[in-house]
Amino acid sequence: MRPLIGGCWGLAEMSRIRLGMVGGGQGAFIGGVHRMAARLDDAFEMVCGALSGDPARARESGVAIGLALARSYSSYPEMFAAEAARPDGMEAVAIVTPNHLHAPVARAAMAAGLHVICDKPMTSEVSDAEELARLAAASGRVFAVTYNYSGYAMVRQARAMVAAGVIGAIRVVRVEYAQGWLADALEATGQKQAEWRTDPARSGAGGAIGDIGTHAFHLAGFVTGLVPEAVLADLSTHVAGRRLDDDAQVLLRYAGGARGSLWASQVAHGHANDLRLRVYGASGGLEWRQEEPDRLWFTPAGEPPRLVMRGGAGAGAEAIRVTRIPGGHPEGYLEAFGTIYAEVARAIRGEPDAVYPTVEDGLAGVRFVAATVRSSTQGATWVRLQPASAASIA
Amino acid sequence: MRPLIGGCWGLAEMSRIRLGMVGGGQGAFIGGVHRMAARLDDAFEMVCGALSGDPARARESGVAIGLALARSYSSYPEMFAAEAARPDGMEAVAIVTPNHLHAPVARAAMAAGLHVICDKPMTSEVSDAEELARLAAASGRVFAVTYNYSGYAMVRQARAMVAAGVIGAIRVVRVEYAQGWLADALEATGQKQAEWRTDPARSGAGGAIGDIGTHAFHLAGFVTGLVPEAVLADLSTHVAGRRLDDDAQVLLRYAGGARGSLWASQVAHGHANDLRLRVYGASGGLEWRQEEPDRLWFTPAGEPPRLVMRGGAGAGAEAIRVTRIPGGHPEGYLEAFGTIYAEVARAIRGEPDAVYPTVEDGLAGVRFVAATVRSSTQGATWVRLQPASAASIA
Amino acid sequence: MRPLIGGCWGLAEMSRIRLGMVGGGQGAFIGGVHRMAARLDDAFEMVCGALSGDPARARESGVAIGLALARSYSSYPEMFAAEAARPDGMEAVAIVTPNHLHAPVARAAMAAGLHVICDKPMTSEVSDAEELARLAAASGRVFAVTYNYSGYAMVRQARAMVAAGVIGAIRVVRVEYAQGWLADALEATGQKQAEWRTDPARSGAGGAIGDIGTHAFHLAGFVTGLVPEAVLADLSTHVAGRRLDDDAQVLLRYAGGARGSLWASQVAHGHANDLRLRVYGASGGLEWRQEEPDRLWFTPAGEPPRLVMRGGAGAGAEAIRVTRIPGGHPEGYLEAFGTIYAEVARAIRGEPDAVYPTVEDGLAGVRFVAATVRSSTQGATWVRLQPASAASIA
Amino acid sequence: MRPLIGGCWGLAEMSRIRLGMVGGGQGAFIGGVHRMAARLDDAFEMVCGALSGDPARARESGVAIGLALARSYSSYPEMFAAEAARPDGMEAVAIVTPNHLHAPVARAAMAAGLHVICDKPMTSEVSDAEELARLAAASGRVFAVTYNYSGYAMVRQARAMVAAGVIGAIRVVRVEYAQGWLADALEATGQKQAEWRTDPARSGAGGAIGDIGTHAFHLAGFVTGLVPEAVLADLSTHVAGRRLDDDAQVLLRYAGGARGSLWASQVAHGHANDLRLRVYGASGGLEWRQEEPDRLWFTPAGEPPRLVMRGGAGAGAEAIRVTRIPGGHPEGYLEAFGTIYAEVARAIRGEPDAVYPTVEDGLAGVRFVAATVRSSTQGATWVRLQPASAASIA
Repeated sequence: MRPLIGGCWGLAEMSRIRLGMVGGGQGAFIGGVHRMAARLDDAFEMVCGALSGDPARARESGVAIGLALARSYSSYPEMFAAEAARPDGMEAVAIVTPNHLHAPVARAAMAAGLHVICDKPMTSEVSDAEELARLAAASGRVFAVTYNYSGYAMVRQARAMVAAGVIGAIRVVRVEYAQGWLADALEATGQKQAEWRTDPARSGAGGAIGDIGTHAFHLAGFVTGLVPEAVLADLSTHVAGRRLDDDAQVLLRYAGGARGSLWASQVAHGHANDLRLRVYGASGGLEWRQEEPDRLWFTPAGEPPRLVMRGGAGAGAEAIRVTRIPGGHPEGYLEAFGTIYAEVARAIRGEPDAVYPTVEDGLAGVRFVAATVRSSTQGATWVRLQPASAASIA
Repeated sequence: MRPLIGGCWGLAEMSRIRLGMVGGGQGAFIGGVHRMAARLDDAFEMVCGALSGDPARARESGVAIGLALARSYSSYPEMFAAEAARPDGMEAVAIVTPNHLHAPVARAAMAAGLHVICDKPMTSEVSDAEELARLAAASGRVFAVTYNYSGYAMVRQARAMVAAGVIGAIRVVRVEYAQGWLADALEATGQKQAEWRTDPARSGAGGAIGDIGTHAFHLAGFVTGLVPEAVLADLSTHVAGRRLDDDAQVLLRYAGGARGSLWASQVAHGHANDLRLRVYGASGGLEWRQEEPDRLWFTPAGEPPRLVMRGGAGAGAEAIRVTRIPGGHPEGYLEAFGTIYAEVARAIRGEPDAVYPTVEDGLAGVRFVAATVRSSTQGATWVRLQPASAASIA
Repeated sequence: MRPLIGGCWGLAEMSRIRLGMVGGGQGAFIGGVHRMAARLDDAFEMVCGALSGDPARARESGVAIGLALARSYSSYPEMFAAEAARPDGMEAVAIVTPNHLHAPVARAAMAAGLHVICDKPMTSEVSDAEELARLAAASGRVFAVTYNYSGYAMVRQARAMVAAGVIGAIRVVRVEYAQGWLADALEATGQKQAEWRTDPARSGAGGAIGDIGTHAFHLAGFVTGLVPEAVLADLSTHVAGRRLDDDAQVLLRYAGGARGSLWASQVAHGHANDLRLRVYGASGGLEWRQEEPDRLWFTPAGEPPRLVMRGGAGAGAEAIRVTRIPGGHPEGYLEAFGTIYAEVARAIRGEPDAVYPTVEDGLAGVRFVAATVRSSTQGATWVRLQPASAASIA
Repeated sequence: MRPLIGGCWGLAEMSRIRLGMVGGGQGAFIGGVHRMAARLDDAFEMVCGALSGDPARARESGVAIGLALARSYSSYPEMFAAEAARPDGMEAVAIVTPNHLHAPVARAAMAAGLHVICDKPMTSEVSDAEELARLAAASGRVFAVTYNYSGYAMVRQARAMVAAGVIGAIRVVRVEYAQGWLADALEATGQKQAEWRTDPARSGAGGAIGDIGTHAFHLAGFVTGLVPEAVLADLSTHVAGRRLDDDAQVLLRYAGGARGSLWASQVAHGHANDLRLRVYGASGGLEWRQEEPDRLWFTPAGEPPRLVMRGGAGAGAEAIRVTRIPGGHPEGYLEAFGTIYAEVARAIRGEPDAVYPTVEDGLAGVRFVAATVRSSTQGATWVRLQPASAASIA
């Protein structure tokens, strides 16, 4: 009830951005999330879609989510072409297909002059990611990659505190993303989500490391502002017959001597989406957990730990900016995802200070996955990580 | 990632219900919440509003949230009249004014044949609440009161477990709603939310007991299916100059010998919206906390406590029905609020099994507040609580 | 590893106090706890015992715990007489019998010039407690009652903070002690602990309220320094055939307008010894839980909650005094109990500042139980609580 | 109050074992812990000591802890010789000196025919550890190393569950021990504990990895029964001027494909003694944290997480055996340490099933530290770990 309400509420004052979607038809998961996220702050209007690779199913799915029949397209090339011809055509596209299709769809979208919101990992291949980064830079359009956890208010609080030097020079970074849902061969039962995520052809060379490790990697970079110089990864597969890693233990080395560790696992019974970040600096520590996202533990050197809460005392401008409701009334995953969309809307409208994961972050994530796979293949040895472009961490 | 996604996603398949709003203009809090909640599952379309008692501000606020100028009305009587004349006129109204205006607006809305979604407490006076209940029963329209915490998936899980006899006959109920934001005389600083909530003319005879105690009361009844026979309340005011209670200690007696306790406080430093429910039966116990809404503690007699999580193992049909995303990705306050709207949409569409707080629940809440005030005025003695109608707990 | 180690360690430097025990033979629980507690800081030497009412079993039990056969007595009168005749006779006695025997044993012990450490509740009858208080005052000896939770370091920290005005004038006190072990008729199975605790002849008129409610009552008074003026209690029995209350809901009124609530239950599935205290003052709040005793939550008005830990930053002199090991290495129940013994040792040695629960605290506890039973018998109405003597809260 | 009390209570029935101590004089920390631990269950009697390397201080310290002047020796050779000549001479010795003295004292103690309880790490040099292992095997005496965390009841519960196959074949082990007390150059302030622990001459080649990493290593092995085949360690030093590592990131590879990770840090603000173990098997997961030692999280595949508590439902024979008091009344660090002493007492008395860390565990720990130092020196590359003897994990 305190006046700690952020800027998301004002977004509806301007006209909504016309959004289309590729992928996300019936049976998909992340498409529905993108739609709720886009709707939450009323900054987008979903106007069209090509929701499936199967033409009939694409049209059906579009109608099912309330699209006009005429704008429920049977393929993305058809959609991009038809919408370009309309005065009220789509302005932005959300790409929510399996990973291997991100690159061709994004290329076509940029060719059509659209803003792009692409799910992660951005591509399966580093070369594709590099190309998208070049194209995006040339396009003058917004290109966002939905590393959605960076939308949480207390993640932004942590980032702001690090940037302000509150915990001093960073020494140790610990990040982990633990799940247990693939502890058995779920992919063998026909479960769609499990199927494509464990299939190298659709998922890329990384299993757990690509699906969730890349989220952890982005989160650590987003909060600390640091990108590792080198990584060492021990990827392993614990379920018989699985073709990709389901557990990834990674060491990180940063310039200046900081050390890090990243763990991603999909065989950790008892964890659902247990993404945790701990950062220790010379003068303090921070701890955040995705399953309790409104809370940020902050320990200044020599003082008792403090619990900084979204909407509560100690939350600063960066957190308030993305806060919708008072503290103690939890904001969750959809709100954080919505914040990415809200920030993208701001960027599209030309606001200079929008904070969202960019195509450069997407590229960094793809490079990270490739480096860990290479390291692991070489017997878990150190591999240098190609530095991101200057703009990498927005 | 498990296939535990509920029914909220299908709502967009049918045409959206046209919604108007009374109250909720600039500076208000709960109006924005209702709008996000209504938007989340895409079952409503906000088409008009009379967002303030001040005509100019009402129009301005309407435009600010994206309404057409023509449907941004200067008063609710004007809106109800004009919309009734349109073929695409509003079908339902959300009433989000201060408490004392709920009754006249709701009366007018029902007279206009609208479905009503009214914030809580439903009215300040018992007689008004009784009248609304009669009118609603006669109207054939849906009348919902936004006891929004009943929208949480794990609250519904708890309710289903109690109903199924999982914890046996209920013995003890402990419910509390603790806040600290009024520990000082915030109302003296001009803070709008504090002002009207501590003003008997706008808030009614209950302070903390009316603002948040009534939420706790509804939650306990929603989960247990029990309504107390008698209450004893010790209401107290701890901030100098305040005209309403800011702390309420209440004992409850149920038919059959169960005992309960309700605590509502707005002077409890360290609590934001700390609504907690604990229920103990002959064969088990349940514990739920609003600030960690995806978790339900369940202890079967003689076994270790278990943590049942939204989207996780042990969550049943009633929870899954209102689950949007997989476990471990938190759903929060807006999602629970959205569930009330989703269920109201189902009810408006004539689905028989929609579960939402009704006008009878609103009436029970108003009676509860009145009884506690009377008990406290009489020196904290026992007061019988008038039984609710049969339909009370939906 | 920080130099936060308290004074308990120095106790062994002086000669050990010679201790005898009445009660606590085979099958008993609390006797063994007293012995470990007395041993922990090496300030006592257990020299004799009359461990059972059954002479043969008394001797056997004494030998079983390592007492010399000659000092393993068959009855307490025999022990007091024999020990008085020895140059190295007992100096203090620990009384750990069922409740109804506390009074006669304590009377005899004081007559024999012994220091007394008596388990709680001190007596079943108020008149007995008053007599003991008079006798103790006249004796010049130490008389302690083992309200052992007052030995926890963070309880002492809380007490010191309240006394120093850190949270301002107290407004609301919430204390509860929840257990689930008597949710079924365990007494019907022959379980000894359950048997005597549910038997009015041995336990007194209070069931849960006497066994654990009295602990909660002492804790609240110990930390806040406040004693209620009036109580209202709704005692209830939820297990068929049980003769004493197994759930107690109590309201408290303090001089000056503060309000309190006490809950004691033995039918709360999922709780073992879940004693919790929350205190809210004008300028801050405190929260402590016995099952995580090394942690004290402290929220200063308008600041984030802080976690003050035993042995950590923010722990003051009163906590350090009773701290044995560095923070993060948990001290538990036996250590807190040991602190009561350590403080009694200091008092016996004549140190002026020993802090432990006295005979006056014992009397206050007995009066509290009697008042709640009377209130409940009268239909849960308000009953004034006789003010304790000046020395009540040590 | 349930009959879940373990075997520790019966130890006093037999005559106490006569114990001497080397090290642990004034200003020391761990000596006092050993004394309280030895006293707790009354199975030992402290009869003599050589508490300091400084003869005068040694005698003084002995008297200060209540030893007879005649048995408060000025050096350990003197003590071993004098005690051997007494009919009531010491039977066992507790070695609590800085690390570099463990080996010579232990050698002398074994030569004197004593049972040995040695603090960890057992030695600084692998060769010394190997020699002690040989000598101990030949001696026929008990040789324990105080990896005290293995004394916690719920650690034993976890070990028993793993051994019984409850979580299936182990896939992933995550263990960490985080502290923050050395985040600054505390050793430069003259703090004794910090001084010797950061001094290679007294501490050995490992800093954090030797002081606390070795505890984490033992804990993981104790619970899982697994010893890694290879380790890869990235040791780093974050405080300027410090000569040993203060952060250690370690990867572990086990036979059969299981993977592990060990983190030890002394620069992690906000952590005191935050030792945590997580173990994931094919059919379940376990999680335990030293700062909440009475709780063990257990998630069976496809079921909600359960909280198994010491003294509560689900705790098995191995936990009950070392349980002193009912659940909900916390047992802490001293109790766990006391359990090591209790088990050693059982072993000395010839009971066949005593479970305590042996000289082989001590050797494994020393080898582990040496291997990590070597790995790190070689650029954080893989190093094979010499297999322990068959008897390694008791």
